[in-house]
Amino acid sequence: MDKDILKNVKNDKFAQLLGIEIVEASPGYALVEMKIEDKHKNGINIVQGGAIFTLADYAFAIASNADGSTTVGINASISYFKAPAGAYIRAEAREESKNKKISGYKVEIKDEDGTLIASFSGLGYRKKTE
Amino acid sequence: MDKDILKNVKNDKFAQLLGIEIVEASPGYALVEMKIEDKHKNGINIVQGGAIFTLADYAFAIASNADGSTTVGINASISYFKAPAGAYIRAEAREESKNKKISGYKVEIKDEDGTLIASFSGLGYRKKTE
Amino acid sequence: MDKDILKNVKNDKFAQLLGIEIVEASPGYALVEMKIEDKHKNGINIVQGGAIFTLADYAFAIASNADGSTTVGINASISYFKAPAGAYIRAEAREESKNKKISGYKVEIKDEDGTLIASFSGLGYRKKTE
Amino acid sequence: MDKDILKNVKNDKFAQLLGIEIVEASPGYALVEMKIEDKHKNGINIVQGGAIFTLADYAFAIASNADGSTTVGINASISYFKAPAGAYIRAEAREESKNKKISGYKVEIKDEDGTLIASFSGLGYRKKTE
Repeated sequence: MDKDILKNVKNDKFAQLLGIEIVEASPGYALVEMKIEDKHKNGINIVQGGAIFTLADYAFAIASNADGSTTVGINASISYFKAPAGAYIRAEAREESKNKKISGYKVEIKDEDGTLIASFSGLGYRKKTE
Repeated sequence: MDKDILKNVKNDKFAQLLGIEIVEASPGYALVEMKIEDKHKNGINIVQGGAIFTLADYAFAIASNADGSTTVGINASISYFKAPAGAYIRAEAREESKNKKISGYKVEIKDEDGTLIASFSGLGYRKKTE
Repeated sequence: MDKDILKNVKNDKFAQLLGIEIVEASPGYALVEMKIEDKHKNGINIVQGGAIFTLADYAFAIASNADGSTTVGINASISYFKAPAGAYIRAEAREESKNKKISGYKVEIKDEDGTLIASFSGLGYRKKTE
Repeated sequence: MDKDILKNVKNDKFAQLLGIEIVEASPGYALVEMKIEDKHKNGINIVQGGAIFTLADYAFAIASNADGSTTVGINASISYFKAPAGAYIRAEAREESKNKKISGYKVEIKDEDGTLIASFSGLGYRKKTE
């Protein structure tokens, strides 16, 4: 895929602060990974909900912008099921629907064991579609 | 309020990474603040959705644990309305309902101008209630 | 308020099937009521979640169309806190934010005792704004 | 599957009012169908959001109770993508996660053409698990 298309998404300083890496990206799809570090943890030593959300939201941003549109997130919903086990967590975003102005994505967040630890739904508003 | 009750929440390393500060906290209520820095921004130079979510989620965590319970977030939903203006953003959490096992919170996220930039709803599962 | 503006919303056959009545309506605001009948109940004899959702969603539809726009719901999230007591339930919708294309509403659903039984958030897409 | 297990769910008077039929049900899974009638429509003559939600929510209720537990919905989120085409709509619920107290379900709502018209996520609280 054309690297320029994802230039904005890749320059995301907050995703860099968290150490999130893009594993795969194509229009309507993204897989991202975050190695778990101490800085991601809350006061009871498990990965903070905001870090898990950010990982999922970043997968959603990549998948929804990878068609060359400028899509901004307008709603997101997340359910947390389990605390992650292992060294990293991954989020995989897939497009559910896309029309001229609105697109919907489903993101699964899994730990190193492949267990679903959280489930995310994102709704995007497509400001520019070239 | 007894400082020990919020000890776990205050030891949150991810909230510290973002520079979030607790302005006010009491059972069922919390107000938190984040001064906007470059590290919070996405690739088009506005505050990243994950940073805004984390601020709101942290307010929810404080408000829901400030009664001495151990409450974990099981669902959260956020709608984004505007890009923030000014030097900081604040999130204010208020309890909507609480029964033996489930509690619900509403969080408003406003910028320095007092404009509502996002609205968050959190649902907690009360594991321990002392 | 001009009756013509809400003509479409008032012709809602599904809301009529449920017996929902409009108590009050103005741009960005609506209060609706549903007298609880047997037909609203689920198999364990409490008001069905879909009936509660529909009441809240109808309040959202009225509040978001009462400015003369044609606004369609694109996302809704609901948390259920309690089974309702008394003879009726009411839903009260208030606008949280509105820009050219997207508007956000918060709806509180209360029973006859005034207890909050559910909390609803709705996001609208403004197709036409006259 | 034992008919007694779903007795409560099948006695749902609100689902009967809407004419919803169970096509298939097993622990963690359900497929339900609603033939579109005039009574399901809103004031601009398309299927009302509350009717679509109720169909999805009923699939969620069946799938989450079909293991013999008594599971009540505590949160639901729905995104609407398209107006349905054809004579009926179907909702298919699949379990995403289940632990002792909380279970998560994803429901896809499709029209007769097989187009995804809405996407639903449901979170259940398992009151009794036999």
